[in-house]
Amino acid sequence: MTTNDLQARAINTIRFLAADAVQQANSGHPGLPMGGAAMAFALWTRHLRHNPHNPKWAGRDRFVLSGGHGSMLLYSLLHLTGYDLPLEEIKNFRQFDSKTPGHPEYGLTPGVETTTGPLGQGFGQGVGMAIAATHLAAEFNKPGHEIIQSYIYGIVTDGDLMEGVSSEAASLAGHLQLGRIIYLYDDNHISIDGSTDLAFTEDRGGRFEAYGWHVQTIDDGNDVEAVDDAIKAAKADPRPSLIAVRTTIGFGAPKKQGTSKAHGEPLGDEELKAAKENLGWPVEPRFMIPGDVLEFYRDAVEQGRAIETDWMKRFEAYKKAYPELGAELQRRLDREFPADWDADMPTFPADAKGMATRVSSGKTLNVLAAKLPELVGGSADLTPSNNTLFEKAGDFQKDNPIGRYLRFGVREHGMGAALNGMNLFGGVIAYGGTFMVFSDYMKPAIRIAAISGIPSIFVFTHDSVGLGEDGPTHQPIEHLMALRAVPGLTLIRPADANEVVEAWKVALTQKNRPTALALTRQNVPTLEGTDRGMLSKGAYVLKDFGENPQLILMASGSEVSLIYGAAEKLFAEGTAVRVVSFPSWDLFEKQDEAYRESVLPKKVAARLAVEAGATLGWERYARSVIGLDYYGASAPYKVIFEKFGFTVENVVARAKELL
Amino acid sequence: MTTNDLQARAINTIRFLAADAVQQANSGHPGLPMGGAAMAFALWTRHLRHNPHNPKWAGRDRFVLSGGHGSMLLYSLLHLTGYDLPLEEIKNFRQFDSKTPGHPEYGLTPGVETTTGPLGQGFGQGVGMAIAATHLAAEFNKPGHEIIQSYIYGIVTDGDLMEGVSSEAASLAGHLQLGRIIYLYDDNHISIDGSTDLAFTEDRGGRFEAYGWHVQTIDDGNDVEAVDDAIKAAKADPRPSLIAVRTTIGFGAPKKQGTSKAHGEPLGDEELKAAKENLGWPVEPRFMIPGDVLEFYRDAVEQGRAIETDWMKRFEAYKKAYPELGAELQRRLDREFPADWDADMPTFPADAKGMATRVSSGKTLNVLAAKLPELVGGSADLTPSNNTLFEKAGDFQKDNPIGRYLRFGVREHGMGAALNGMNLFGGVIAYGGTFMVFSDYMKPAIRIAAISGIPSIFVFTHDSVGLGEDGPTHQPIEHLMALRAVPGLTLIRPADANEVVEAWKVALTQKNRPTALALTRQNVPTLEGTDRGMLSKGAYVLKDFGENPQLILMASGSEVSLIYGAAEKLFAEGTAVRVVSFPSWDLFEKQDEAYRESVLPKKVAARLAVEAGATLGWERYARSVIGLDYYGASAPYKVIFEKFGFTVENVVARAKELL
Repeated sequence: MTTNDLQARAINTIRFLAADAVQQANSGHPGLPMGGAAMAFALWTRHLRHNPHNPKWAGRDRFVLSGGHGSMLLYSLLHLTGYDLPLEEIKNFRQFDSKTPGHPEYGLTPGVETTTGPLGQGFGQGVGMAIAATHLAAEFNKPGHEIIQSYIYGIVTDGDLMEGVSSEAASLAGHLQLGRIIYLYDDNHISIDGSTDLAFTEDRGGRFEAYGWHVQTIDDGNDVEAVDDAIKAAKADPRPSLIAVRTTIGFGAPKKQGTSKAHGEPLGDEELKAAKENLGWPVEPRFMIPGDVLEFYRDAVEQGRAIETDWMKRFEAYKKAYPELGAELQRRLDREFPADWDADMPTFPADAKGMATRVSSGKTLNVLAAKLPELVGGSADLTPSNNTLFEKAGDFQKDNPIGRYLRFGVREHGMGAALNGMNLFGGVIAYGGTFMVFSDYMKPAIRIAAISGIPSIFVFTHDSVGLGEDGPTHQPIEHLMALRAVPGLTLIRPADANEVVEAWKVALTQKNRPTALALTRQNVPTLEGTDRGMLSKGAYVLKDFGENPQLILMASGSEVSLIYGAAEKLFAEGTAVRVVSFPSWDLFEKQDEAYRESVLPKKVAARLAVEAGATLGWERYARSVIGLDYYGASAPYKVIFEKFGFTVENVVARAKELL
Repeated sequence: MTTNDLQARAINTIRFLAADAVQQANSGHPGLPMGGAAMAFALWTRHLRHNPHNPKWAGRDRFVLSGGHGSMLLYSLLHLTGYDLPLEEIKNFRQFDSKTPGHPEYGLTPGVETTTGPLGQGFGQGVGMAIAATHLAAEFNKPGHEIIQSYIYGIVTDGDLMEGVSSEAASLAGHLQLGRIIYLYDDNHISIDGSTDLAFTEDRGGRFEAYGWHVQTIDDGNDVEAVDDAIKAAKADPRPSLIAVRTTIGFGAPKKQGTSKAHGEPLGDEELKAAKENLGWPVEPRFMIPGDVLEFYRDAVEQGRAIETDWMKRFEAYKKAYPELGAELQRRLDREFPADWDADMPTFPADAKGMATRVSSGKTLNVLAAKLPELVGGSADLTPSNNTLFEKAGDFQKDNPIGRYLRFGVREHGMGAALNGMNLFGGVIAYGGTFMVFSDYMKPAIRIAAISGIPSIFVFTHDSVGLGEDGPTHQPIEHLMALRAVPGLTLIRPADANEVVEAWKVALTQKNRPTALALTRQNVPTLEGTDRGMLSKGAYVLKDFGENPQLILMASGSEVSLIYGAAEKLFAEGTAVRVVSFPSWDLFEKQDEAYRESVLPKKVAARLAVEAGATLGWERYARSVIGLDYYGASAPYKVIFEKFGFTVENVVARAKELL
């Protein structure tokens, strides 16, 4: 038996584990694993630095399967190289409670670095990972002590390259010259509708060269040596690399290979049998892994242990040579905070003029950034509006990778994906800003964060019609509610500067959950009694005007001062009113029944919610809502609020109707 | 006075109308109008075929200001060339109830072809317009009778080119060789954060050439002749054209030009004065339009009348030469339907097995497409899954522009924008499909349709965890509610095949409102009594089990059959139950109070809603909700429904709790 033979069988093992699993599930995508098995083999057995028995080893390379529909390729590799993913899980592909869901899910399956499937997300997350790695390397690596070495490898598909998010991310990666990125492009000429001739005939290589990428082409996707060489060349090139590998989707299946029939459905018993015969593979048993093949792949366990051990030794040496840096890097990799990280948080005295919450956010960020060097962030080209830039941040650029501020450009979606990747990589905590209305542009990335439990921090300023003259196209209406409806996302809309401070603390201490901050463009008063540590409860009694309230007024963000004013007036007229600041539904719904009842006692039926956004949903807490179920207007914000009934008088009048 | 002098002053008139308006509003973007005035002048006075006194003339070219923040450029041109936009409106820029909002709004201001501001949307809409024009030309133009001649002109900005949606649309436009597109790229090297060196250093021309575009470069953005020549060359080239015009943002303002200070804020009185002095413009009065300049621009009125008159003559000649085609084109431009368009709509007998609503949608579409040749559509590479392809459609491709089916590729966002552009152009009714979870990818385009009243039809299949094995990344949870929260969008989630038929009728007859259809992947029974024309009411009594219901069960889509089954069981046990099919909140909320009360009588407090999606919002109608406030699972759908409590037993149990 020759090495070549072993290699060929090792590659076929991937192919048929995948095809068998898809067949057994009667659902899934055999085409990518069968077509891409050889290039994945080259990458995983010759380049990828990983430790199957410690998937979280900080020094590892990252592998991103951006075409997540090819999940069985990844599951096969994980099983074969010795991750804690038994063959039973492969046989249980796409079944309830298995660790092998339809598309890879971060946090569920050991070795899965990112949740992928929605196309382009993995591509963009890889760009974020490369930013994090490059930044950490610049900050911590020392001559002879290259602790941060990770490459970001990926397999990307036609669909990934067609999605706008990857265009944004690719342009950014080229601009930043993120040489750690090495993506294998599964250039199989097929998408679900059929040939890529139907819709995707652009010069892909030319496009990536225009982005500033290093582009290579491999004509035969089964040529392991060519892939190997190309990866070596990619490593040697300072630019991000795209290696276009001409593969045959469903390689081996005699009737379906090279067609869309091989993409997203089981081959069928007959074609599966024919494929095995075609490639000289035993038809039975299914899920066959030859002993020598398994032995070959399982070398990864010992190799992984060895490279991690070596890395740990080098890290220990680093810690001796640079004790402070070493301790700092360790702390950051552990995502632990310094003891005094929140010791100097600002407090804001009550103040009728107040300030915009985007401004208090900027002030808070400045304090936090000084305490938390891992805090890095940026904006999708709205820095002066989002107040996301802190002092001494410095721009992260190719000639200044130590900079902590990202100029994402007008690329909200790419930013969202990159933030996710940065936070997944670790060692940094990444936030990014845009206008709230443009949360729409990055919603798929927000959802990936929520579904994966990635603690990305999304800073959404200009959070209502209060943004004024830019008009309806820039005024969020449905967005607060749309974000509240996303499972696993904490939306916080702080009422004033003090709530903003606490909102940032919540965002930073949520280690497995993304946070979206909704901040005003316009000034809001700093109120008496806001927060006192209560924001983390999601809603709290800001003030009871009188005992035994007859009425509860509730609001979030800029409308809290409005209901406060209305409550004062109502109380002056003899009504006992409770004012509830309600910054976060998500946090409130996590409180126990007793707390929730203490804030919103059932016996008080007269409840009015006020929010400059869609009313839908507030019926959960309130009997009546003053909101906006139509688009805004272009005018100074005070005029808009007046015209749309966000006035003390209107709140008072509506409250009286309720009573 | 030389022509050159007049031209220079005509261009400066645009600059200072814009700068004065921004200054007066104390808000807005002077930079683009000042920098782009000369190229806009060249386009509007030498190429754009339009009729200011009939902004809806079907034969006109389209002008899309994709960088909508430069709205004052457009408003200046509209006023100057004689549209119904008086100078008072310019003076009222960005004020409540003016026709000159912060960003251009379709339907509000005569001559504004698209709502822009959210970057990239205009770029993508222009691609859709070009698709429509190209398709109509292929269908209707005859030798010597070129009725459809429209070019799609645009001004696009750095921000537009950075957005992924424009990348998707550009790739598609190149693939389809949409030569009618001629975009001037305002290459001013500045975005909000500062120099484009910060984030946008890719080779833009190279990228567009890779897409298959014709790319030209103009070094001096004030060189009217060069712009003129480039537009001529663009017209002569069969490819879509990008003309990169090197401009100076805020041209003329001595201290701010060429910097981000000129982008999005008033110049300030002093700098405005200095700019006027710099360009030899009288400092006072503001909003000055020299008489000869106005006279020059207002030639557009007579020219416009003449070219429309000429076009009408040619259209009359066409109608004589091709009476049937002529009548057909007229009908389609008028967006009138043939008398019998809905005569042959299918009806489906009650059937326990039923079919997926995506399948009945496909069947309905086939019938409609035969009756309505204006119906064109496509899918973002999910054709076999979305059931969006009808018989005899033919692919719209560069060598087959008569085709009625669009292969959008994996470009949901580009598809959304293109659909909007196609429907704006007119003569076609355009729909497009993807999975509902990927509505996220195109949300900004959906919102543009809703805010602008564009009747795009979004076909979202795989509308719940019922999609099964593809798992949580592909299973919508929050999406139904998020779409319901969009003002101006009609979401319809039909319960079965008969409701699907009616849903399509509603979608097609909404002439000024977009519709999103939510359709199942999985089979649903065809129920007794569905629809009977009632779907258009949004919710209706599908069946009363017994008189004087003690309980109302309500659901949409695939869960209607579930509550029907539960109602049967409850009734058998002695409870009178009403079953309400609730396909569309939007349509229901348009009904009068009496109708709504007749469906959901206040006296029946026991109300349970069942929907395989987020519960948030259902409290508006129901006291209790069975829904999903967490992510789904990867498994066969019947297992998922069982595990998540979407069973007759659970509905019955929850109903009993309520009673």
